[in-house]
Amino acid sequence: MNTSTKSSISRELHPGHDYCDINVVLPSWFKLESGESLSAPQINIRIHGSAEHPAVIASGGISSGRIVADTPGEKGWWANIAGAGRAIDPDDFCIIAFDFLPNDGERARGITTADQAHALAYALDILKIDQLHAFVGASYGGMVALKFAAEFPERVKKLCVISASDKAHPAATAIRGIQRRVIEFATNNGNAAGGVNLARQLAMITYRSAEEFETRFSPNVPNKETDLFPVCEYLTARGRAYAMEPTRYLTLSHSIDLHRVAPERIKAETLMVGATTDSLVPIADVNRTALAIPGGRCLEINSIFGHDAFLKETAAIGAAITSVINESEQ
Amino acid sequence: MNTSTKSSISRELHPGHDYCDINVVLPSWFKLESGESLSAPQINIRIHGSAEHPAVIASGGISSGRIVADTPGEKGWWANIAGAGRAIDPDDFCIIAFDFLPNDGERARGITTADQAHALAYALDILKIDQLHAFVGASYGGMVALKFAAEFPERVKKLCVISASDKAHPAATAIRGIQRRVIEFATNNGNAAGGVNLARQLAMITYRSAEEFETRFSPNVPNKETDLFPVCEYLTARGRAYAMEPTRYLTLSHSIDLHRVAPERIKAETLMVGATTDSLVPIADVNRTALAIPGGRCLEINSIFGHDAFLKETAAIGAAITSVINESEQ
Repeated sequence: MNTSTKSSISRELHPGHDYCDINVVLPSWFKLESGESLSAPQINIRIHGSAEHPAVIASGGISSGRIVADTPGEKGWWANIAGAGRAIDPDDFCIIAFDFLPNDGERARGITTADQAHALAYALDILKIDQLHAFVGASYGGMVALKFAAEFPERVKKLCVISASDKAHPAATAIRGIQRRVIEFATNNGNAAGGVNLARQLAMITYRSAEEFETRFSPNVPNKETDLFPVCEYLTARGRAYAMEPTRYLTLSHSIDLHRVAPERIKAETLMVGATTDSLVPIADVNRTALAIPGGRCLEINSIFGHDAFLKETAAIGAAITSVINESEQ
Repeated sequence: MNTSTKSSISRELHPGHDYCDINVVLPSWFKLESGESLSAPQINIRIHGSAEHPAVIASGGISSGRIVADTPGEKGWWANIAGAGRAIDPDDFCIIAFDFLPNDGERARGITTADQAHALAYALDILKIDQLHAFVGASYGGMVALKFAAEFPERVKKLCVISASDKAHPAATAIRGIQRRVIEFATNNGNAAGGVNLARQLAMITYRSAEEFETRFSPNVPNKETDLFPVCEYLTARGRAYAMEPTRYLTLSHSIDLHRVAPERIKAETLMVGATTDSLVPIADVNRTALAIPGGRCLEINSIFGHDAFLKETAAIGAAITSVINESEQ
């Protein structure tokens, strides 16, 4: 009896709280773009708010996932945007968040934004959600949002994409490629976790801006030769605090660089949002993508927070999202 | 008999060629700013052109050294600027180039731009050069030039500093700090050379600009999952081709971040040159430094080559240097 040909859902209820976790097992016919099958074929989803509300997907950077809003004991990665009284409010919307593939321990490599989109579409089928009211995605989640809207144009009414574009910039690929080679080097030398730590330090530089670093870190040199510079103390602390399975980091980082979308296929009413200081996803690329989407427009946010504007500029980002998903504007 | 209290010069003549190498052993009283003594206390100098000509020091990035001009069998790092018929011509000037401290195998750490300047001043004493006609320095060599002119204001008439400023920018310190931690990590895991390779790849990104990467590298993704992206092929090739002793790399990288100069002490007639796309030494920092030097002015060069403009923009950089060192302008 081959149970894997059937899809299955496991639903974990959290009594007394307004959300549930649903894990959708992908069927055996589900293949990646590469032709490979997943060894851990499951997509983990969290839903806040009533299924009767308009469905809004919220999706973020590679370190984010289904824990988008605060719950008792868990800090949501976008808690200032998704939650009661926030721009994406579970009183008004059925908020859907998900863990990006691959799951920990996955063997398949080369997982693309198209693969994320296809897995998600399958899960929405299972959840009987034919059409999303909106897909709100930032950073990697923004790439997945664009890809989903291009692959399934009829399934998204509104699209809000922040700090993402139609393809990776070669300068960003350059620095992500080094992060991957640092992890591979560390793995080959028996200390993969140390490699992830260093890769994360490097990533942090690309998430913020030179302007912020100048404002934030004293220009003083350390007293002792062995002391770290203030900016290095910050980065090493962030590196230590970070944990992702090395192979998952490699896959998601690579996925960003493999990302290519055809914006002209997108039918959703689209707002692309970019920060003027984002060196990872230059505002010019955000603009170019918006122009190529038939129903697309672009909003530039002046921010010193670079790529991380989607996490830091709550007021501007929240207002942008509201302007897209607000029902009254329909 | 303690011979180390005496300075000594060894002079290697290259018959039939218009240059000689001079290795000045530093005396035992020579101390670093840190208070340490050098274990390999020698500064290696190359001189092109007659000692009767006005003396001009030419100094570049941490990977550069005394081989500034082409000689039979050696490629000069600034061959398009220093040499017969070039902006710094040995028919007109006595060109002095030198290897930065530390020498290979050196044990002392924390070597500052002040230490480079003091060692150099000692060598000039030995060479009986009281005053330089000009100090032309780019990148790290530009920091050393600024420091020398601030420490020995009477010893430099003219200063031409390219892609350098009075102190390191915290965003640049951030990325150099990661290069150092990658090398330290690799050393601790038994593969220091692999760490230098990765650090060099990372450095290359900061030497060029996102604009150049966009122009140069096709946005195509590789056919096979295991293939590198074009920009990654470029970087890995540059990493493989690079060799510097890991501890020397650490010391020189750290030296850049320790660099602090008091521009107001500089008496030389100074031209500061910066490239508009330099993310390592922002043009704003070059400008600020020029403004703080009593006899300082600034030239901005529009270039897509970022920090490497000093190596790539031969016409503009050559003209800038000529405008400073040309005797007729005195």
